[in-house]
Amino acid sequence: MITYSFTNLGSDSLYIHLYKCIKNDILQEVLHAGEKLPSKRSLAKNLNISVITVENAYAQLIAEGYVYSIAKKGYFVADIKTITQKREPVLSAENVQLSSGKSNYFADFTSNQTSSAHFPFSIWAKLTRELLTNNQPELLTNPPCGGILPLREAIAGHLKAFRNMTVSPEQIIIGAGTEYLYGLLLQLLGFEKHYGVEDPGYHKISQIYESHCVSCRFVSMDTYGVKISDLEKQNVDVLHISPSHHFPTGIVMPISRRYELLGWAAKSEGRYIIEDDYDSEYRLNGQPIPTLQSIDIQEKVIYINTFTKTLASTVRISYMVLPKHLVNTFYSKLYFYSCTVSNFEQYTLAHFISEGYFEKHINRMRNYYHGKRDHLLHAIKNSPLAAYATISEEDAGLHFLLTLKMNLPDEEFLQKLEQSGIKLSSLSQYYRVPPEDVNHIFIMNYSFVSEETMEKAIELIYRALF
Amino acid sequence: MITYSFTNLGSDSLYIHLYKCIKNDILQEVLHAGEKLPSKRSLAKNLNISVITVENAYAQLIAEGYVYSIAKKGYFVADIKTITQKREPVLSAENVQLSSGKSNYFADFTSNQTSSAHFPFSIWAKLTRELLTNNQPELLTNPPCGGILPLREAIAGHLKAFRNMTVSPEQIIIGAGTEYLYGLLLQLLGFEKHYGVEDPGYHKISQIYESHCVSCRFVSMDTYGVKISDLEKQNVDVLHISPSHHFPTGIVMPISRRYELLGWAAKSEGRYIIEDDYDSEYRLNGQPIPTLQSIDIQEKVIYINTFTKTLASTVRISYMVLPKHLVNTFYSKLYFYSCTVSNFEQYTLAHFISEGYFEKHINRMRNYYHGKRDHLLHAIKNSPLAAYATISEEDAGLHFLLTLKMNLPDEEFLQKLEQSGIKLSSLSQYYRVPPEDVNHIFIMNYSFVSEETMEKAIELIYRALF
Repeated sequence: MITYSFTNLGSDSLYIHLYKCIKNDILQEVLHAGEKLPSKRSLAKNLNISVITVENAYAQLIAEGYVYSIAKKGYFVADIKTITQKREPVLSAENVQLSSGKSNYFADFTSNQTSSAHFPFSIWAKLTRELLTNNQPELLTNPPCGGILPLREAIAGHLKAFRNMTVSPEQIIIGAGTEYLYGLLLQLLGFEKHYGVEDPGYHKISQIYESHCVSCRFVSMDTYGVKISDLEKQNVDVLHISPSHHFPTGIVMPISRRYELLGWAAKSEGRYIIEDDYDSEYRLNGQPIPTLQSIDIQEKVIYINTFTKTLASTVRISYMVLPKHLVNTFYSKLYFYSCTVSNFEQYTLAHFISEGYFEKHINRMRNYYHGKRDHLLHAIKNSPLAAYATISEEDAGLHFLLTLKMNLPDEEFLQKLEQSGIKLSSLSQYYRVPPEDVNHIFIMNYSFVSEETMEKAIELIYRALF
Repeated sequence: MITYSFTNLGSDSLYIHLYKCIKNDILQEVLHAGEKLPSKRSLAKNLNISVITVENAYAQLIAEGYVYSIAKKGYFVADIKTITQKREPVLSAENVQLSSGKSNYFADFTSNQTSSAHFPFSIWAKLTRELLTNNQPELLTNPPCGGILPLREAIAGHLKAFRNMTVSPEQIIIGAGTEYLYGLLLQLLGFEKHYGVEDPGYHKISQIYESHCVSCRFVSMDTYGVKISDLEKQNVDVLHISPSHHFPTGIVMPISRRYELLGWAAKSEGRYIIEDDYDSEYRLNGQPIPTLQSIDIQEKVIYINTFTKTLASTVRISYMVLPKHLVNTFYSKLYFYSCTVSNFEQYTLAHFISEGYFEKHINRMRNYYHGKRDHLLHAIKNSPLAAYATISEEDAGLHFLLTLKMNLPDEEFLQKLEQSGIKLSSLSQYYRVPPEDVNHIFIMNYSFVSEETMEKAIELIYRALF
């Protein structure tokens, strides 16, 4: 009968030790497929251990498939087809991002990160503490897939107050970032559709469509936004745009083009417009522009916005507003999804908005960015760079365009800047095929550049010109 | 010249009032397309307001496209093509889930929700408070798309300790729920592949694949798990399985079938196995079964697990472990995605695990569920139902099977139960085409049923038999 020593147990319990011994004998083929194992009672007696110990070891071996039992006959060794496997060379994970997004630049005009000095930590902590104390059952109750009702109500209230949009809470779908919502929309509207994106535009949007293997059309723009003629020519079904503040050109789409686009969408049943209103809260001069959603009476516009710009890029909460008829489609097709944002943060944000903190926060941040922008404009104006610089589209959102009179190719200029610690991007980088007349135009995204470094940064930009 | 009254301003500022008046005249076609507007100076004089006020109103009208300016010529009314749009009948949002997932059943044997009595609220609150006080910059620093390093290190440590898996942090990708990770995997492995799911199986998995318009193959099972022959027959490329505890049958895949599957995967370069280890922490008897991932030396297994089962279904944090060569592919193809879990919760969970609270929590929960299961088994044993009942697969995870001797069709039986406040599902519901011999088998998921209601629930089940 099989016999094992119990002297070197290490930290194992008796049954684990016995299980390992038998398993090892099976793997080493000391015990052969089909071989009968001793009964629990006799093995226990032989090893001078309890029957329970043998029973537990056998149970584990059975659970893992090394042993099988036949009623009234006993325990047998299973047939383990050991497949001869060769270890392939392991690829090294070279491009793998493990470190976090800390910027090593002296001034980074490309980052969307928010500074921790401005996040309302103490209020967030207070609201979190209250929730964890007072709302435990709600926090653990599964929300509908569109998100918790209080947050959707708070967002509807915010949209009414800030964007003059009349939206009912059931039209709102909460998700962990707009990128996630784009994926949901593909499932809602169909993978067979042609999706149109702005050219130039925010790369990530086309990357997401292409990564989902859907047809992505790059729609050219004039000074009012995407060209209707190109939409028709390229058979676009769903158009993804940022009419309130186009990235990177900064274009604010005029009302006439908005109506033209709604007219384009109305011509065919399957056409929709995704209105990405990503930084409208930060319009610095004048009133916010009315959204396409608010003048759409044909239910053609899906409105998307995010709290990653207004609160923090690391708090992943975004939402979309579906036209009413799509709300039904959404719940009949995609009801099985769980909401991707945790209840804890949904409730915290709901209170943050409904108790008025969000409005205060936006006002504070708008003033802060206003100051930043003015500081940067002032720094440019008072530097020798001014003689070479033209500023445009500086009233909306958190970036403007800087056109420079210069002889260097953009590429070389940006490399020089990178060497002196300045990260900047050029308008031409955002085109599929950059036209010739967009040379020497740069995007000044000032949200993550501190005021203290601006003068020096502008000086470095000036010096790189020559 | 245009003239407006400034007597009824309401809460509007002067410039907003002027902007509204002019906009209204344009929309009403009192002012016509192409018409020249008065100069800022002359309009200001005429209305007895400041030039700045007119300037602001004009700027807003220009920004919204109602007015355009020509350098040195002045301001003109834009051509607004008003599209005659008819309001379509608005569909009512009938099926829309607005209320949260509160269960109205006396006993719900289908819910995966966790009870708030067992969530470690005070520790979670303590960790959150510490983070919000001491780690503000980290909380607002963009993480790599795979998630923050401390959480990935904590998970790697947990997998080593609990599942004997040797995994480096860079292989781990954090996401807002396994459903989201399935979508990422489609983008990583390809939409053109054939995805195989278990039949019977957890509906949501096939729903997600079908919702992404990929080919989904339903692979039949024997008592050891999916049949290799059916994988070959159906040309499956990527197989999605739960070998540690199959839902709903409860099958624990034996080691022989595991090796056979690895052998199947090794035969072709594009083949992969997604190992969904959703509730392995709750194995109640014996040691946990070794994962496929831990015996895979060919880099064919993608391991997925979630904290929604162990912590709370409303905390959306899951992760996957990629084979090393796929880590490179992931970062070169999908680097542009932001991690979908907020930093705040990633850091809280990282501390929760690394400070030992998670291990304690799992042990506590395992005991709690162990007690619950035993209570339910005891309740069945001591009820007249016992004479009609057979229990199977009760050792792993949070559900077992109850086979009943009965004459009623399953459908009718479940309806009767529903009327008496018991929600139960039958095994046959999880098949594509239910075979005849899976009648009268029910899934007893006891995680959300309180011990106090169990005796009564079993009595109601017994009564519904006749």
